[in-house]
Amino acid sequence: MIIGGGFAGINAGKALRKADVEITIIDRRNFHLFQPLLYQVAMAALNPSDIAYPIRSVFKRQPNVVRVLLGEVTAIDLERREVRIGDESVPYDFLIVATGATHSYFGNDHWESFAPGLKTIEDALTIRARVLSAFEIAEANPEESDRLLTFVVVGAGPTGVELAGALEEIAVHGMGKEFDLVDPTRARVILVEGNDRVLPPYPESLSQAARRQLETLGVEVKTESFVSDIDDRGVTLSSGERIEAGTVLWAAGVQASPMGAMIGGVDRAGRVLVEPDLSIRGHPEVFVAGDLAAVDGVPGVAPAAMQMGRHVGRLIARGVRRPFAYSDKGSLATIGRARAVADIKGIRFTGFLAWFAWLAIHIFYLIGFRNRFFVLAGWAWHYLTFRRGARIITGVGRLHRG
Amino acid sequence: MIIGGGFAGINAGKALRKADVEITIIDRRNFHLFQPLLYQVAMAALNPSDIAYPIRSVFKRQPNVVRVLLGEVTAIDLERREVRIGDESVPYDFLIVATGATHSYFGNDHWESFAPGLKTIEDALTIRARVLSAFEIAEANPEESDRLLTFVVVGAGPTGVELAGALEEIAVHGMGKEFDLVDPTRARVILVEGNDRVLPPYPESLSQAARRQLETLGVEVKTESFVSDIDDRGVTLSSGERIEAGTVLWAAGVQASPMGAMIGGVDRAGRVLVEPDLSIRGHPEVFVAGDLAAVDGVPGVAPAAMQMGRHVGRLIARGVRRPFAYSDKGSLATIGRARAVADIKGIRFTGFLAWFAWLAIHIFYLIGFRNRFFVLAGWAWHYLTFRRGARIITGVGRLHRG
Repeated sequence: MIIGGGFAGINAGKALRKADVEITIIDRRNFHLFQPLLYQVAMAALNPSDIAYPIRSVFKRQPNVVRVLLGEVTAIDLERREVRIGDESVPYDFLIVATGATHSYFGNDHWESFAPGLKTIEDALTIRARVLSAFEIAEANPEESDRLLTFVVVGAGPTGVELAGALEEIAVHGMGKEFDLVDPTRARVILVEGNDRVLPPYPESLSQAARRQLETLGVEVKTESFVSDIDDRGVTLSSGERIEAGTVLWAAGVQASPMGAMIGGVDRAGRVLVEPDLSIRGHPEVFVAGDLAAVDGVPGVAPAAMQMGRHVGRLIARGVRRPFAYSDKGSLATIGRARAVADIKGIRFTGFLAWFAWLAIHIFYLIGFRNRFFVLAGWAWHYLTFRRGARIITGVGRLHRG
Repeated sequence: MIIGGGFAGINAGKALRKADVEITIIDRRNFHLFQPLLYQVAMAALNPSDIAYPIRSVFKRQPNVVRVLLGEVTAIDLERREVRIGDESVPYDFLIVATGATHSYFGNDHWESFAPGLKTIEDALTIRARVLSAFEIAEANPEESDRLLTFVVVGAGPTGVELAGALEEIAVHGMGKEFDLVDPTRARVILVEGNDRVLPPYPESLSQAARRQLETLGVEVKTESFVSDIDDRGVTLSSGERIEAGTVLWAAGVQASPMGAMIGGVDRAGRVLVEPDLSIRGHPEVFVAGDLAAVDGVPGVAPAAMQMGRHVGRLIARGVRRPFAYSDKGSLATIGRARAVADIKGIRFTGFLAWFAWLAIHIFYLIGFRNRFFVLAGWAWHYLTFRRGARIITGVGRLHRG
């Protein structure tokens, strides 16, 4: 039984394709989400369905029985080897828990309504609606346009850097000359990071390159800056500096899914402490994979989750025990059109080449021919025209008047 | 000033492109929605942004000043020639009210939560989530699958016929062999209509053809059947017949937007009674166009709204008064893959040819090169693979467990 249809869960299931097992995958959603491109949905460049793929369809050609169950796991009984979903108890022989992580506001959960984070499709559409609405509200309230057209991104990890770069591009190119009273190109994008550099886990030379590229685009980068408060009109830094802003986006912290607490033995971030083979102490039939697993030296990125999932799947398929070894394929972060930084097996490069590598790798890992085609077509259109294809404001929070 | 960025509003604005006027367009949403294809978003074949286009972008090359204002009109003061949006009063010289219609439950508004209608992008995503979830919930509760896999569509106008056809196709082709415990092809689709035939406003021979095509697909058509109650487990007909159903969709009634009441002089459906030139009595500077206008012999369809909008725009541009004359270009309704009925200037045809005409006309009228490309590409993929590209369950109501 696999809980979670993310990178770890899907790859565990695939690694079991030739094993003589019956697989049950439980997820709250019917689709696998290609999270590395989620920021592009938020930034109106891609559609939700371009980066989502039905879990059932992932396994449709798999020879063994794969049951997909939509639902929320409410309890795990390790002793009786059962998982509770609603009123139902489902028994398992092997359990793989791969429910990932969500954003953390470090104890300030009330910031969430002012500064949405980016983990789900709904998050992405909320952010899209807020960003696009900011320009509309500024047009209706030109006297407040300085504040309304200030965007703050908190956290300069890969997601924060990507969001900041895309926001600047939306303002400069995405809105064209379609507004009468405000000038979208005057928008300010401010990237706030507590560390002394952007992309903290990356090699220092790449952090510097990324910062240079961001600043060339027009993003203001504030490192060694901590957020002490967020409200509906902006952000206060711990230095006392106040930034009046119409839109604040949260890309700072992550915390493991609450499923970790059901298993027990978690670290401060809520991740489950696992044995070297990713099983949990005293329960060799239970594994944790992906962002929910605490493994020294393994970052919370998609390739790591894929490798962990594959590892666990193979262990079960072959009936052997082996410690998990992370193979670091490198780091890639994109900053905008033809701008990116890459560190692939020690070879570091920036600019167009890094950006092209980023494109190629993301298209390669995207599941489904249709998704690949539509993402490529969307990118081509965006690249040629500078316009964003999904510039529509929908859903909740679509008009939050300042 | 134009209130509403639908077919009437957009076409009024375009007809004024060479006039020496300043145009303000007010809408609650930032996009123009191509409503004839909205059911395809609901049926997971297209993405929201494929059929939505920013209103600002529609007018970006127009030579005169076009201001687009996002907001909700709360009052119209015909005497002072002012429109209230929030706290703001905006004066006008000419006013075009084109806020369209929404669905009507004939006084049974509590049915809405059980049987959503289809007017907005959010409606479409709600319907998509319910329809796709029905199969997932049936898989989790196979003992109730007969009810869960029964879909009722109330109303056999063009939208109802399109929904019923697409539902049957989803069940038969869209879900493939991806479920273990339920057989999606066993789903029942029931189309309920009070009239004695489907597509009541169409010529009788086409109604018969449409019914035949629906029944060939597998849809059960119940004409002369009125709904007396809807609850969370199904539909009761006035004959006393009870249909246990997991999903009910409402495609029966429309009522004009509440903006009509602000102007006064409305008919039973809330539409504004207009003079032959579409102005309102006593106020030659105020016009009503599109579904909100009550004009004898003019149906509530997109071509009529476009013609009315264009008519009003031209009157204002030229400073002349002429009665509006509706030119009926014909009727087209699609039932499914290569199935449709058409009546174009008295020439009636059905099947593949009608379906092809439907495709061509809808692509032609869709705004924006990008939208045309992505809709065509989506259709081509769907046609070749029988699969639906947007099979993801998002947003509110994404899991309504039976």
